[in-house]
Amino acid sequence: MTAPTLPTAADIGVAADRIAPYARRTPILRNDALDEMVGAQLFFKCENLQHVGAFKFRGACNAVFALDETRAQAGVATHSSGNHAAALALAARLRGVHATIVMPEDAPNVKKRAVAELGAEIVFCAPTQAAREAAVEQVIAASGATLVHPYNDFHVICGQGTAARELLEDFPNVDALVTPVGGGGLLSGTVTAATGHSGDVSVLGAEPATADDAFRSFQANRLIELDAPPKTIADGLRTSLGPLTFDIIRSGVTDILRTDEDEIRAAMRLLWERLKIVVEPSGAVPLAALLANPPSRFKRIGVIISGGNVDLDRLPWRD
Amino acid sequence: MTAPTLPTAADIGVAADRIAPYARRTPILRNDALDEMVGAQLFFKCENLQHVGAFKFRGACNAVFALDETRAQAGVATHSSGNHAAALALAARLRGVHATIVMPEDAPNVKKRAVAELGAEIVFCAPTQAAREAAVEQVIAASGATLVHPYNDFHVICGQGTAARELLEDFPNVDALVTPVGGGGLLSGTVTAATGHSGDVSVLGAEPATADDAFRSFQANRLIELDAPPKTIADGLRTSLGPLTFDIIRSGVTDILRTDEDEIRAAMRLLWERLKIVVEPSGAVPLAALLANPPSRFKRIGVIISGGNVDLDRLPWRD
Repeated sequence: MTAPTLPTAADIGVAADRIAPYARRTPILRNDALDEMVGAQLFFKCENLQHVGAFKFRGACNAVFALDETRAQAGVATHSSGNHAAALALAARLRGVHATIVMPEDAPNVKKRAVAELGAEIVFCAPTQAAREAAVEQVIAASGATLVHPYNDFHVICGQGTAARELLEDFPNVDALVTPVGGGGLLSGTVTAATGHSGDVSVLGAEPATADDAFRSFQANRLIELDAPPKTIADGLRTSLGPLTFDIIRSGVTDILRTDEDEIRAAMRLLWERLKIVVEPSGAVPLAALLANPPSRFKRIGVIISGGNVDLDRLPWRD
Repeated sequence: MTAPTLPTAADIGVAADRIAPYARRTPILRNDALDEMVGAQLFFKCENLQHVGAFKFRGACNAVFALDETRAQAGVATHSSGNHAAALALAARLRGVHATIVMPEDAPNVKKRAVAELGAEIVFCAPTQAAREAAVEQVIAASGATLVHPYNDFHVICGQGTAARELLEDFPNVDALVTPVGGGGLLSGTVTAATGHSGDVSVLGAEPATADDAFRSFQANRLIELDAPPKTIADGLRTSLGPLTFDIIRSGVTDILRTDEDEIRAAMRLLWERLKIVVEPSGAVPLAALLANPPSRFKRIGVIISGGNVDLDRLPWRD
């Protein structure tokens, strides 16, 4: 078995061209009050305004449209806590192929509904990594579908990197990029995109302190997985890094920042109040981390707001 | 006394140039699911993402920067339920002049706080049109400040029209524009902007059925004011048309649509869920009206989302 190919900045360019007819070029928002609070200019890349309300559409779309026709006709399958699920469902619908989604029973209702509306077949499983993987393997064995892993996948990583690529095109003088890190698809795509940038740009991950496998893996320089499903309101960040995303992250990330649950809730509310956008808890983690660890060495920071899928009946400042 | 000058499309162009260094060119969002529900393509101009979270910044900015230096130094004053207040406070701060804002005691806390943070002086009054006007006249008599009326003002109307101007620049083939109507500044600015457009574009207003002075005035072809403060969650639309805005509206508006409180709440929630943006009740009134009255003759409709200032502790679907 050969080592997996690591994506390059050129691969992000290929992905950008491939998804251009389908994905939105999302707006980048600014806010003086938030800049003052962090002590740097912030450029918020609003992937909550992407199709299905999350950056995940970029990776899923790239993976689905990269398949040759024969593979595509056998369908695609995945396991996901939600946003990747809706993303793959939409990408499959756009290509006209079948998608089967394995979802944990405890996924937010808003995410279950979104997947069902997009016409994908849903298979429920217990909310553990092992149960997810077993269920999706069954689906693939039975149907011949292609697994589109939510993060540990070359094409998915390349697709996710297109968000940072756009941000760097629009604001080439940012000196740092911060993304949330769960499985690491967005962060590793961002690292890869940054290597193709003419300027010097640091890349940082941000994760909940209760799900800090990326921090611990980065410090130890070896992949450390979470033992048990972590308790965090950032439901998109409960997964552990994979071998591929960890390889990319350890090679190109400057730091992993951690933030606690109260900080995530407060940052989420700040984004709603100040930017007037609906951001899910995971999407607020980078701002939470920047507020908790104001980064004096960076003056112009690109922040990727990962998604906006949140149950409006269960807002964290009301529970 | 001469008749007031009515603004022209060229005046909107002057306003656009004047406010360009200060105002945001807001993004326009699309959503397939909402298009299907209305039966037309919708183009949402997101003025909730404008400075101070509302289109009102455009008009206030144009009015403040249109003043000659002597008048500007005496300061500006206004009365407002909130968004115009914050807008004038910010515009005055950007020009470096004093602003006094008369606000009704029952204005939402989020709006009071925004004005205070922007450094304006606040004078509270009873929540009636008469009390507002009396209080602002006192301020002007004492200080020599210039009244920047929230809607019945040439420069304010011209500034508000720049939102529709941008929408028509970005999507020149829309066949209708819909805006909320309270005092009529946004609607009359939109009418004026549309007269300068090369294509044929109808302009419609949308208002709460419980505050339907614009509908009744339009039907009767004479200005009919609301007798008492109307009960509607659309707090930005509780005011009546003024003589100037009514003159423009009756000359150029195709129709005024009405919508009830449940429809406003439902449309507001739809915008949050589908577009992932924070919209205040007034900003949801156009979509509510379109959903209640699907307009079969229009295929591409520009919808101006007026603002996003809402108390996150008092969301209408939680009370």
